Amino acid sequence: MSTEPPLLLALDLTGTFAFGLNGALTAVRAARLDVVGVVSLGMITALGGGVIRDVLIGAVPPATFVDWRYFALAAGGALLAYAFSRLLDRLDMPITVLDAVGLSTFAVIGASKALDHGLGVGPALLLGVVTGVGGGTMRDTLILRIPSVLRSELYAIPALVAAGITVAAVKAGLYALPSVLVAVAACFVIRMLGVRYRLNAPGPLGRRPGDGSSGSDPGDQR
Amino acid sequence: MSTEPPLLLALDLTGTFAFGLNGALTAVRAARLDVVGVVSLGMITALGGGVIRDVLIGAVPPATFVDWRYFALAAGGALLAYAFSRLLDRLDMPITVLDAVGLSTFAVIGASKALDHGLGVGPALLLGVVTGVGGGTMRDTLILRIPSVLRSELYAIPALVAAGITVAAVKAGLYALPSVLVAVAACFVIRMLGVRYRLNAPGPLGRRPGDGSSGSDPGDQR
Amino acid sequence: MSTEPPLLLALDLTGTFAFGLNGALTAVRAARLDVVGVVSLGMITALGGGVIRDVLIGAVPPATFVDWRYFALAAGGALLAYAFSRLLDRLDMPITVLDAVGLSTFAVIGASKALDHGLGVGPALLLGVVTGVGGGTMRDTLILRIPSVLRSELYAIPALVAAGITVAAVKAGLYALPSVLVAVAACFVIRMLGVRYRLNAPGPLGRRPGDGSSGSDPGDQR
Repeated sequence: MSTEPPLLLALDLTGTFAFGLNGALTAVRAARLDVVGVVSLGMITALGGGVIRDVLIGAVPPATFVDWRYFALAAGGALLAYAFSRLLDRLDMPITVLDAVGLSTFAVIGASKALDHGLGVGPALLLGVVTGVGGGTMRDTLILRIPSVLRSELYAIPALVAAGITVAAVKAGLYALPSVLVAVAACFVIRMLGVRYRLNAPGPLGRRPGDGSSGSDPGDQR
Repeated sequence: MSTEPPLLLALDLTGTFAFGLNGALTAVRAARLDVVGVVSLGMITALGGGVIRDVLIGAVPPATFVDWRYFALAAGGALLAYAFSRLLDRLDMPITVLDAVGLSTFAVIGASKALDHGLGVGPALLLGVVTGVGGGTMRDTLILRIPSVLRSELYAIPALVAAGITVAAVKAGLYALPSVLVAVAACFVIRMLGVRYRLNAPGPLGRRPGDGSSGSDPGDQR
Repeated sequence: MSTEPPLLLALDLTGTFAFGLNGALTAVRAARLDVVGVVSLGMITALGGGVIRDVLIGAVPPATFVDWRYFALAAGGALLAYAFSRLLDRLDMPITVLDAVGLSTFAVIGASKALDHGLGVGPALLLGVVTGVGGGTMRDTLILRIPSVLRSELYAIPALVAAGITVAAVKAGLYALPSVLVAVAACFVIRMLGVRYRLNAPGPLGRRPGDGSSGSDPGDQR
């Protein structure tokens, strides 16, 4: 990612730290884990989406394995969450804000990198979203929660918007700092509105919520 | 997959659509999901097995990311399931038939592609089965069900038969439309007999069914 | 892995067999599975960690797909567990010992192979641990258990020690049979002490164990 503009790199590193912190906090709250588990899940949350993307486009070893700063920030965020989980419980909003920064940046970088590797529009959109939500999905699966991206709040949709703006900008020859900022800002604003007003994507048509036989749903907290 | 015979391509696209539809329906029934979740799980069911195979043989980006028809059919089937899930509940048998077409075709294509990439007999059999069952396994894991392929009905075994016939035909220099049809038909018939007579592979010797501490089994429906 | 010393190869094959056996036994105990499920989970336990490592470093098809002995030993161990699960329940300690041999060897080989492919120290440590624990983690996720490596006993830490000694030896130009044996022995001893004295990595600071909302924890046995 050496060719990304410096601001995008700064946002990406911020997002990696936030995902590591938030992923580890979620793990601490949701399951009985030791320090190995908490730090592992924080790192998986922070690095997992990018790793899946890089494996799918054949860019291995994954970018985050080559640049030690991603490793260090993901692990640092996770260790912080392990050490100060009680304290951080009170900082829900700042953490959610940083997490939304990560989601936005990851979606932009994922879509742009997919296009760089010659993928079409559909897969680039998909990989933008996967970069944003893949790590959290892996974490949720490992701690036996139905991934929150599949069922609650606006999470995948803002990432899709950011990926869509990015793909449109690249195709129009306008991929540069201004379009990146528009994509990041659009995703960030939609995500924060979703959090603020508890917006959800619509459930299945003709079924009430909870209509399925969801016997082992381990709770709704993200 | 441009070198596959046209009939196999038609079956493959049919199977992709059926897997997208059936995967999304299973998701609607099993868990409380929004439209993002239902469509994601339908697409994962339809495309997941082929993606795992392509990652394992180094054919990235995966074939289904390069040919937009797979994407469109998987997403179309999933959206249909989201929109008409109540109605489709009554069409169990036609959906099961289409699903068996997909399983059969995916197993044949998976085994044949693995041999094309220089893998031996054992891995080719494995990748035939993985292509057929991988997507459904990912979906089940994400919605917290023990993957049905691991515990109920004949699902992996017919796929293994199709992969076995395919590998034998390739090794004998007879891989062409007739042998493909034999492999697809054999898998299809075994699968449908399994559904019709509720056949299961044998459980662990010396243990009664349900003997394990399966505390969180979220139900038996596929 | 043709360049590994013969003793390391022997340990690696022993570990593969032990992981296949132990993984299948865990599957039999934890969930209601048929023969397909038991053998699949045994093979996933034995081969999964190495497959993840090889995918991440771009060494596909994975080494275990190319060398039939790994396949055969993993499947053989799993079939043995399926056939004699009642009997093997009484052989807990020998199986745990063989499993620790596998963990130690896998961690050493994983770290060494990552360095061979040009990865840095951090990713090499990570891939050493992933090679050791990845298969069991995949198995646990598929049968809906929170992976034991994330929450109980010393399992990842001894693997990290073995990977650390390996990385240090390679960097010092001392990677040869003696250093391999030191790394394997260190991991093995720490792991067995952990089993013997039921040692666990520390839980989250400032929280009592079980403080999280772990509603769907399907049991503690490994």
